[in-house]
Amino acid sequence: MRDTKETRVPMVVIKRLPKYYRYLGELVERKVERVSSQTLANMMGISASQLRQDLNHFGEFGQQGYGYRVEGLYHEIGRIIGLEHEYSMIIVGAGNLGQALANYPNFAKRGFLLKGVFDINPKLVGLRLRDNEIMDIDKLKPFIVDKNIDIGIITVPKEAAQDVADSMVEAGIRAIWNYAPVDIKVPPQVFLENEHLADRLMVISFRLKALGYDED
Amino acid sequence: MRDTKETRVPMVVIKRLPKYYRYLGELVERKVERVSSQTLANMMGISASQLRQDLNHFGEFGQQGYGYRVEGLYHEIGRIIGLEHEYSMIIVGAGNLGQALANYPNFAKRGFLLKGVFDINPKLVGLRLRDNEIMDIDKLKPFIVDKNIDIGIITVPKEAAQDVADSMVEAGIRAIWNYAPVDIKVPPQVFLENEHLADRLMVISFRLKALGYDED
Repeated sequence: MRDTKETRVPMVVIKRLPKYYRYLGELVERKVERVSSQTLANMMGISASQLRQDLNHFGEFGQQGYGYRVEGLYHEIGRIIGLEHEYSMIIVGAGNLGQALANYPNFAKRGFLLKGVFDINPKLVGLRLRDNEIMDIDKLKPFIVDKNIDIGIITVPKEAAQDVADSMVEAGIRAIWNYAPVDIKVPPQVFLENEHLADRLMVISFRLKALGYDED
Repeated sequence: MRDTKETRVPMVVIKRLPKYYRYLGELVERKVERVSSQTLANMMGISASQLRQDLNHFGEFGQQGYGYRVEGLYHEIGRIIGLEHEYSMIIVGAGNLGQALANYPNFAKRGFLLKGVFDINPKLVGLRLRDNEIMDIDKLKPFIVDKNIDIGIITVPKEAAQDVADSMVEAGIRAIWNYAPVDIKVPPQVFLENEHLADRLMVISFRLKALGYDED
């Protein structure tokens, strides 16, 4: 109902929504019915005013002096994130990282369904990875078209990443989650998330330094 | 020199520093000597005013009408992030994800040195993972103490994650990067980064929806 407004929500707020969703989900499981903005903000590690600002992007959820209804807010944030849908995914690159992601338990639970795994290595093609047989990369484009795949995950070496992305784009994929340590390019209609694992370590490095590591 | 100021930099700015560092590194490799805030902002996918605001947190780097000196800014951001140090890391959990991280090429390049890998599974203990022999989890605490390990990466199943974190904390680890799909608790002097892989998919879900997926 508020989609045009939602598209203008700052990325930094969008990136917090899954965390709200997780904490509210925990409260739902513990049968908590309502929560104050202060309590939820403490769980999140942000200020109560930040929390109220965040949620105001999506309409009025809270009530003065009452707080938030946990279950209602949980489902509403799920709706905003788009979790009422199921999404189909493929993984290209069946090495350790591809296998780790294929086995990650929380994706299917959130409606992200793995439909296929691809690799170029003939020794891997035909092996089974949980419910999926590893397919030859030659089958990638027709598979995306036939199965109307939404999301492509790239876990190949960096030299191959742009080629894989190009094939995905040509076949009409909607989003790419790239784990290869290189920034790939895609046209603007495809949503791209480049995952740079070393970036997270650099944030840790900054924090260790800020925590007084330098003075040790 | 500006450490007290740097500790108050918003987390959202800190999280962009590795990206600045990567793009500036590319320019250094291409022997580009200076760059305008507009050009660098375009590479980053942010506005030029956002970029100037970000970098102002750390002092005055640019010059009106000249732009930024690429190499100077690159090294300065590296210094701010704390990359003049080397950091020692261990991985606990030698499954697919632990193996993928142990083999990730960009960590050592940034000064994050893997010193040990641990697992509870006797079938894995003693096997080699690149330069590391997988050790029994019993050896974890003395190893952290002896080798003065900075960063512990947790890639065990979620049921075991808090116990592993507790052992790391007792042995004096400085930071934990947790890949188990559960929020673990650590005391405030330990910097904790919980990695929730499904959160990234939820951001992708939101974007697919905002890109008009709902109306298809």
